[in-house]
Amino acid sequence: MPEIRQNPATKEWVIVSTERAKRPEELIEPVKKRLIPRFSRRCPFCPGHEDQTPPEITANRDERGKWTVRVVPNRFPALVPEGGSIREEDANFFRSMPGLGEHEVIIETPVHNASLGLVDDEKAFEIVSMYYERYRTLSQDKRLKLVTIFRNHGREAGTSLEHPHSQIVATPVVPLHVRHRLEEATRFNDDTGECVFCRIIEMERKEKTRVVMEGDGFLVIEPFAARSPFETWILPVEHRSTFGAATFAELTGFAHILNRTLEKFSKGLKDPAYNMVIQTTPTNEENEDYYHWHVKIFPRITTPAGFELGTGVYINTVLPEDAAKYLKKL
Amino acid sequence: MPEIRQNPATKEWVIVSTERAKRPEELIEPVKKRLIPRFSRRCPFCPGHEDQTPPEITANRDERGKWTVRVVPNRFPALVPEGGSIREEDANFFRSMPGLGEHEVIIETPVHNASLGLVDDEKAFEIVSMYYERYRTLSQDKRLKLVTIFRNHGREAGTSLEHPHSQIVATPVVPLHVRHRLEEATRFNDDTGECVFCRIIEMERKEKTRVVMEGDGFLVIEPFAARSPFETWILPVEHRSTFGAATFAELTGFAHILNRTLEKFSKGLKDPAYNMVIQTTPTNEENEDYYHWHVKIFPRITTPAGFELGTGVYINTVLPEDAAKYLKKL
Repeated sequence: MPEIRQNPATKEWVIVSTERAKRPEELIEPVKKRLIPRFSRRCPFCPGHEDQTPPEITANRDERGKWTVRVVPNRFPALVPEGGSIREEDANFFRSMPGLGEHEVIIETPVHNASLGLVDDEKAFEIVSMYYERYRTLSQDKRLKLVTIFRNHGREAGTSLEHPHSQIVATPVVPLHVRHRLEEATRFNDDTGECVFCRIIEMERKEKTRVVMEGDGFLVIEPFAARSPFETWILPVEHRSTFGAATFAELTGFAHILNRTLEKFSKGLKDPAYNMVIQTTPTNEENEDYYHWHVKIFPRITTPAGFELGTGVYINTVLPEDAAKYLKKL
Repeated sequence: MPEIRQNPATKEWVIVSTERAKRPEELIEPVKKRLIPRFSRRCPFCPGHEDQTPPEITANRDERGKWTVRVVPNRFPALVPEGGSIREEDANFFRSMPGLGEHEVIIETPVHNASLGLVDDEKAFEIVSMYYERYRTLSQDKRLKLVTIFRNHGREAGTSLEHPHSQIVATPVVPLHVRHRLEEATRFNDDTGECVFCRIIEMERKEKTRVVMEGDGFLVIEPFAARSPFETWILPVEHRSTFGAATFAELTGFAHILNRTLEKFSKGLKDPAYNMVIQTTPTNEENEDYYHWHVKIFPRITTPAGFELGTGVYINTVLPEDAAKYLKKL
């Protein structure tokens, strides 16, 4: 029997279709990938090609002066740091505003093939620390409302460059979907006096079947209403609404657990394409205690189609409990 | 300068990024497709292979008794017509319900390569009439709340079978995204006394730059806040909340205009993969006069990535006005 499950944090329904279920391992086709080299002559992010990116925003450098992490503006920015945040209605009632915002690329390493999940924890910490540094800087601009950090890995996940990198987009609007998530979390808090994510953490620890791992202050789960096979959440156990308030110890723990999780994807799941995103509060609503920052990873193993696009309801062909069991033992 | 545009019907924001804009024709790579045959020995939907599908639900037959359109249950149904619609909370507070519903496949034609857009209007009318017949039948089941008709075309759009077919999924819940759309349309009606889609139709006709074509009681536009290149809406000009209330004349007009629109995609845009979905009211809210049924077509030309998945905000690299101009002249 298929089952329809509700995400308690958002109230979204997901169909878990056991009729069409496959065992997790059946979904993981060994990808015929060419071996990625340590350096590529045609890669704009490899060392020596610094003139192929817009001027550097910031970077870490080693004792010989060579950069180890480098932040640059996106060469084709979705948003630009000019213009106001006033909405305008045209004569025909359509509302728009200038494309104000920031769009940065974090080049995580000079090594073309050293992706997160394949690096040591020290390197992972350097990357996560740069996330934090850029988050803190961009959240100072009061015209911008939300700072979104994300990582696209593999062509099916929408990236054209294989050199390990993450991106940050800061938008002058709170997107509708983010607003709805905040509203649902607020409603839960109004009803119960608790944070819905704290409750999820408590319940998943009790339930155990969807826990992939736990440690260093973080819990990794396959969520109850996972939208797709191997959708994975990384949650800080300590309640904190915004990524911008993470402590040094939390960043250290996050780097470790993120690196271990992505290692399972890279090695155990045969390196599927995935999108990773840090979900956090809008920058001007950081003190609200009903939200709880966390990370979502969406492997791009299945393709959402007309039903998903039309209704927002996803059909998941793998039980989250089976996916958790599989990931856990890797 | 990029621009951020709001969809007036849903309040969703979309980034139209002119910095990274391409001309529409640059996006349309001539697809290296093998010629699709009229019949395939391995296709479960081709004539003579009727035993490879679950038992027929209904069909049209010609004077020689051969089927011309055939409806069967999906062999791997996302939902099944058993179980109640009561939600249950488990001991650990997670909410779920049985996977009650219907999942049907409409095999549109016995001819393996005669896809919508390449057929005559009479055939298109037969298909659309079957949509209507199944919609009417499935909406009788009061346990089911929403009947969604959709069509996935091409592998990138999530279909594994190339034989022309559509699908219908009837769900026992009103999905959250559908509820939000209804709420926004209600709010607009509360504010103005008008239907937001009627207003869009009026304004797009006045604006003209996003109209692809008009006729037979339907308007085809590239919406102001299109989420991706060539996202296309087909709207009945006459206000009607539900597809289930369409008249004979409207179905005739819809068949013609849908066929013409998909012809532009097949021939003019070099046959991209796309998802098509009919958006309509929940079946038990059909009398509400604030919603307005319509069709959305999403070509799968670009890949949404981490930013889109995390925020619900899409980045569109083609101006809807340019896409409309291009489609119009095809």
